[in-house]
Order: sequence, then C-alpha cells, then structure tokens
Amino acid sequence: VRILGVDPGLTRCGLGVIEAGRSRSVSLVDVTVARSATHDEVPARLKAIADAFDAALDEHRPDAVALERVFAQQNVRTVMGTAQISGVVMVTAARRGIPVALYTPSEVKAAVTGNGRADKAQVGFMVAKLLGLQAIPGPADAADALAIAIAHAWRGGVNTVTADAAGTGHATAAQRRWADAEKAARKRG
Amino acid sequence: VRILGVDPGLTRCGLGVIEAGRSRSVSLVDVTVARSATHDEVPARLKAIADAFDAALDEHRPDAVALERVFAQQNVRTVMGTAQISGVVMVTAARRGIPVALYTPSEVKAAVTGNGRADKAQVGFMVAKLLGLQAIPGPADAADALAIAIAHAWRGGVNTVTADAAGTGHATAAQRRWADAEKAARKRG
Repeated sequence: VRILGVDPGLTRCGLGVIEAGRSRSVSLVDVTVARSATHDEVPARLKAIADAFDAALDEHRPDAVALERVFAQQNVRTVMGTAQISGVVMVTAARRGIPVALYTPSEVKAAVTGNGRADKAQVGFMVAKLLGLQAIPGPADAADALAIAIAHAWRGGVNTVTADAAGTGHATAAQRRWADAEKAARKRG
Repeated sequence: VRILGVDPGLTRCGLGVIEAGRSRSVSLVDVTVARSATHDEVPARLKAIADAFDAALDEHRPDAVALERVFAQQNVRTVMGTAQISGVVMVTAARRGIPVALYTPSEVKAAVTGNGRADKAQVGFMVAKLLGLQAIPGPADAADALAIAIAHAWRGGVNTVTADAAGTGHATAAQRRWADAEKAARKRG
C-alpha cells in the first residue's frame, strides 16, 4: 500500500511517500518539500504547491493520502494558508478518487513515537529509525509528512498489532506501547 | 467587464456574476448558490463546491474573480471550511489565468451601502437596487456574492468617481458618499 503523507503549508509543504507492508513494515519511496515564494500573491503561491502535489500524485500513484488536520486554534497568521492548502489537497485527491485520511498532530506523534506530545526532534528521530534512514529527513516538514504517512499506515488498518506477519497474535513490547498510545490518542479524539 | 463574486462556504457558496460597464453601471448575469451535503466527508463536500465553481467559470468566462477574505477570528467551526473553499477558488482561478481580488466583509458593505457595518438586509436591499432587481436575491449567500462582485467593479478601477461617463469629473452626492466610505474602509484595512 502506497501512502502520500502531506504536511500542509503555504510556504513549505511536506510531501512524503512510503510503501507500507506487513508487520508494520514501512519503507521510504520519496520525500520532497514543495515551496512557494512569500512575495508572490496567494493564488500563485497556492498554485505552486498544488502543482507539486499533482506531480507527486502523477509520479507515485498513492492508494491513499494522509493529511494533517488543521485547527483554527493554531497560529492565526499561518492557519489560513494551511487550511487553504488542505482544501486544495482534499479536492485534488477527491477528483482522482483517492481516499484522504486526516490526523491531528498529536495522533501522528503518538503513532510514531508513542507520545502525543513528542517534540520535532523525537518525531524526526523515529521517522528515520522506522524507515531505516541514515539521517533525519529535513526540513522538519519532510519528516512530518513521512510521520503522517506512517501514522496512516498503522492506524488505517494496513496491519494491526494482533495480525502480524507470523500470524501469532503476539506483539512486541514496542508494538504494545504504540497500540496503547494510539488508543489514548483516539480517546482524546 | 465580467466579474464572478464568490461568498465562500462549505455548506453554501454564493456565486454571483455581473457585467460592469461605464459610470458604475452594473447588471446581473447570473447568481447561484452551490451546496454540499453536511453528512458527506469534507473532500467530497469541497469537490461539490469546486465543481460548481468550475461550471460557473466555464459558462460565464469572467475577467476577474472577487472573493471574500476570510479571517481566522470568525466563527471557528465554519472558518476552516471557508478557508479551504477559498484555497480551491484561488488555485482554480490561478490555473486559468484569471486574476483574483480579495475584499473584507466591511469593504464590501462599505462599497455597496456606504456603511462598513451594514446588516445583511441592507446589503441585500442595495444589491437588488443597484442591479435593478424586483426582489432581493436569496439566500443571503447569493446577495453577498453579488455584493462582492459589485465591490470589485467599483473598487477594482473599472470606473472611478472622477472619471465618469460624461468625463465631467463631477460626482453625484451618492457617488461621493461611496467614495468616502471606500476611503474609510481602505484606511481600516
């Protein structure tokens, strides 16, 4: 299952593609950060990001798009651009018939690190570890986009802890921590 | 000059098309309210509105799109959907090479009624009067979309008060009130 994770933003928009297999295995396919020039008008900036998103869909043909859910409570100066990008991403995916799943930042952090309040460094560290990368992908938007994709791979039902590759139903301690963190994140909604 | 005014919204999105001529003359071309089903997922809802906006562009080939500027300070429950629609509208227009102008609600009210704090009824009344309509277009989203288009016709430089049709440079009392209201709205930013 190929998943395109999107960390939406008007200045920088992270686009991370992973392949999710059995037993929670995830591997990196591609990661880029689309950018727009801050001195451009907003329509041109949105178009720059939209074009990059379209190109990623064309190139990687994902089965699903996972997108960070935007809250109006966040930084007022950036939240409108982020919401606008989210709208563009959702419409583009809907027109191609690709399902879109939304995750809150704390759901993503909980899925990837086991802690819904993990900091950026911890998320980047775990993303690199889980994907078997030598270094943390940068900038933070790149690591975040991959984290969102991983969160979807695990929460979206590609594999559950009790249906692992060996079919034994036994989970490792780390898997149990993840499962508990995911449950806690779900309860918080 | 043909102008498509958009009152952005996820549940109801007003789309008002006017033709702006000399001496501040404006006439109605078409007005519709695009809707999406509240029980649908957000991507499908955005797509329903986006499809209606595309259809309006195809049918009316406007020279400009005028869009209400969204503020994060507004109702938090509706602002995210409104921002998402705005993003979709701006990208779609940008991809077609159509300029997009943004106006705050108070700029629109000041342009159409002379009062930046006018209520919905007053805006609807003036929209009907200015377009020579027998009745106020409904629902409010329809009248608002037309008001946004009219605001662009007058503020966007189609005609200015001092360059009227007769070329006399004389403004009527009503035109002076409009001009003053516009200046005041600009100062408030």
